[in-house]
Amino acid sequence: MKRPTRHYDYVADGPAIYVDSFATIRAEAELSHIPADAEKVAVRMVHACGQVDLTRDLDIHPGLVSAARDALESGAPILTDATMVASGVTRARLPKDNEVLCLLRDERVPTLAREWATTRSAAAVSLWEDRLEGAVVAFGNAPTALFHLLEMLLDGAPRPAAIIGTPVGFIGAAESKEALAAFSLGIPYLTVHGRRGGSAMAASALNALAQERE
Amino acid sequence: MKRPTRHYDYVADGPAIYVDSFATIRAEAELSHIPADAEKVAVRMVHACGQVDLTRDLDIHPGLVSAARDALESGAPILTDATMVASGVTRARLPKDNEVLCLLRDERVPTLAREWATTRSAAAVSLWEDRLEGAVVAFGNAPTALFHLLEMLLDGAPRPAAIIGTPVGFIGAAESKEALAAFSLGIPYLTVHGRRGGSAMAASALNALAQERE
Repeated sequence: MKRPTRHYDYVADGPAIYVDSFATIRAEAELSHIPADAEKVAVRMVHACGQVDLTRDLDIHPGLVSAARDALESGAPILTDATMVASGVTRARLPKDNEVLCLLRDERVPTLAREWATTRSAAAVSLWEDRLEGAVVAFGNAPTALFHLLEMLLDGAPRPAAIIGTPVGFIGAAESKEALAAFSLGIPYLTVHGRRGGSAMAASALNALAQERE
Repeated sequence: MKRPTRHYDYVADGPAIYVDSFATIRAEAELSHIPADAEKVAVRMVHACGQVDLTRDLDIHPGLVSAARDALESGAPILTDATMVASGVTRARLPKDNEVLCLLRDERVPTLAREWATTRSAAAVSLWEDRLEGAVVAFGNAPTALFHLLEMLLDGAPRPAAIIGTPVGFIGAAESKEALAAFSLGIPYLTVHGRRGGSAMAASALNALAQERE
């Protein structure tokens, strides 16, 4: 096997691409409203979506980075609403080979969703309950799943260490993220207001939180 | 286990959320420049990123939908540059339980990348060669991987049926997508010009191509 003939002029050095990308983002993005210890989180999220104006909608609680990083360094699991979010977590960055778990495909989910008249993504969140205490939870897809967690917490469920809430879309997404930012129980959170969001944003936030090193 | 107490007012009916989302997108997005048979592809990609102005940058070859759909209905595999893209493909939508394959973690990749002085994402594309003929290939992450495929094709590699090319980012992404749109060998393609792109866009395009039904 041999490398194909070069026909195009492009940078093919992986580490150099990262360095140049992050430098471009820092030159163009407005980062002054981001908590100082969350700057690398914001940069990595911009990197994941290719849009420097993402920071306009980015809302990071001042306690988010320390809470999430401490939890991960203590071995806390990461619980996600979508398999794509779990798939996007770079395992080599995790400080304690932390468990990364999405329960959407658990066999109990379809029945619960039907009985409760809710989405499977929301029903799956109830299955997190025995792992929720001190976990880092991340929503990259379903507004209903985020609403469901907030309702579980208001009912007295165990408290996660940090909530990454970036559901995407047109129905309920913006509202679920407003509810997260206005939530009364003081759990550190990260969100992207409005319709934007998605699995890549949630995963990139987790990858930045997993360790300080870029 | 019981459903948590409702504290928020939100739509929790999965199918209704899809219907309302797609209606909102069709009311707001500019779709007139999209090939008629690709309208649902564009709508699903907008759905995946929460941005109706995505269609401004969306470039879909007039032969893309029929080529990709025919290939999948013939049982062609889907080859992806990133595990997140593969993870985002809804298996239940695939017409022939098609293989969905990402070779980024193949054990040969690190050595090839080092010997060829390129990224692992690009090196992994060379491992597609014996499956490439008639396949549907999708890039949601790495510009270098897309450039690498175009170079393989110029060197005479087997031709895929369709190329979904939506790498994201700041270094080489826009250029790789321009190269795809200007490519001389007449393979139907889909791309999102500029910096935007990502795994969710590639996966949503694949999910729309897998079957006509929304």
